[in-house]
Amino acid sequence: MELHAFPVGGISEIRPGDPLADVILTALKRQKLPLAAGDILVVTHKIVSKAEGHVVSLSNVRPSGRARRWARSYGYDPRVVELALAESRRMVRQRHGVLITETLHGLVCANSGVDLSNVDGGSSAALLPPDPDRSASDLHRGIKKKTGLHIPVIITDSFGRPWREGLTEVAIGVAGMRVFHDFCGRRDPYGYRLHTTLEAVVDELACVSGLACGKLSRRPVCIIRGFLYQRGRGQAKQIIRPAARDLFR
Amino acid sequence: MELHAFPVGGISEIRPGDPLADVILTALKRQKLPLAAGDILVVTHKIVSKAEGHVVSLSNVRPSGRARRWARSYGYDPRVVELALAESRRMVRQRHGVLITETLHGLVCANSGVDLSNVDGGSSAALLPPDPDRSASDLHRGIKKKTGLHIPVIITDSFGRPWREGLTEVAIGVAGMRVFHDFCGRRDPYGYRLHTTLEAVVDELACVSGLACGKLSRRPVCIIRGFLYQRGRGQAKQIIRPAARDLFR
Repeated sequence: MELHAFPVGGISEIRPGDPLADVILTALKRQKLPLAAGDILVVTHKIVSKAEGHVVSLSNVRPSGRARRWARSYGYDPRVVELALAESRRMVRQRHGVLITETLHGLVCANSGVDLSNVDGGSSAALLPPDPDRSASDLHRGIKKKTGLHIPVIITDSFGRPWREGLTEVAIGVAGMRVFHDFCGRRDPYGYRLHTTLEAVVDELACVSGLACGKLSRRPVCIIRGFLYQRGRGQAKQIIRPAARDLFR
Repeated sequence: MELHAFPVGGISEIRPGDPLADVILTALKRQKLPLAAGDILVVTHKIVSKAEGHVVSLSNVRPSGRARRWARSYGYDPRVVELALAESRRMVRQRHGVLITETLHGLVCANSGVDLSNVDGGSSAALLPPDPDRSASDLHRGIKKKTGLHIPVIITDSFGRPWREGLTEVAIGVAGMRVFHDFCGRRDPYGYRLHTTLEAVVDELACVSGLACGKLSRRPVCIIRGFLYQRGRGQAKQIIRPAARDLFR
């Protein structure tokens, strides 16, 4: 199927309590890009964190001795390290100046997702939303209420990964669609029956949005059109591999 | 930027020695989808492996005792395990019925990329191309010769990953563009200077193609239009994190 991704700009600075569904629908209207059935809405978590008030002024953070020691070794801001530790349930790796944690949600990423970019120039840090699936669900319901349309919502962040250099976008919150397409048991055009082919389509959709929106251009929202998603009650937390099934922890 | 992905169908069964550039250009012509400057060509490795003759009939494989023991424990075909071992330089994990290897290229993936799907119904296995960057470069030059256009080429496979369930597409071969977009030192719209933000755009482009082409529909080629890639001599092997820099091996 042909796939189209439309970045959405002209979104005003988001403040705590701002109604995201309204803000996004207004921007879409201004851009003359009305939502249509079949569309998927992809949103970077930064504006969700801002709307939900999960932004912390660094001047209010008192770093612990542990955070200060680690930060000093690598030239980091100890207040950011303190936030990363507070947002983590477990340290995964702490080497080569990289702090990989398992967040309170179970996500494995750098600095627990605590990030100064696209916030306010460096004096405040955005945290990840505490329940990104619920955030996605709220936005999904908000859009439905205003438009009558069923529009799946994906909330994204940029994560690194083992073995491969570079960040890619991933889905940290999902509502309104399945997160995997399961090809297990289906036959390819040659009649071969596929095993264990579970495609993480919401992570791939996050990547589409990452490419279309870029990182420096205040386009935190993307409409993806043309992908035949499977409607369902998918949640991004289903993507987090349970520790018992993971070969690498 | 708006991003568009066009899957390309009507590609005949590829045999060893087939000229891939010609085959793809013919299919594009039939689909009335002429290449344009700025387009990126994404190709699943399966047709590259077929064209280069890296397809092995399982009836010609003699599994070792090691392969037979492992296969028996998990109900696998020992001949596929034998091929996976032969294509590997190192066993990464061998647990829970999953065989994760480091391939001869240094890629970390299941079964060394040895795969029976979309080959011939289960009697033959496709191996990964031995030098996918060279394969991409060959195709890139072939397209240039026929059309005069500089069209970057990405060769893909579907890989699993630690911590997260499900497969996503990744780039295993690249030609004609940089593999990363480097935002390090650039300022976001708020004036904050980004650190270490290296985006693996070719992996994200591979994901776009994965969504547009699907796995069961004989559409092994995708044209991606609208992404402002950076021209360069990028190679997918740059994405493979050197063991010394990897926190997880």
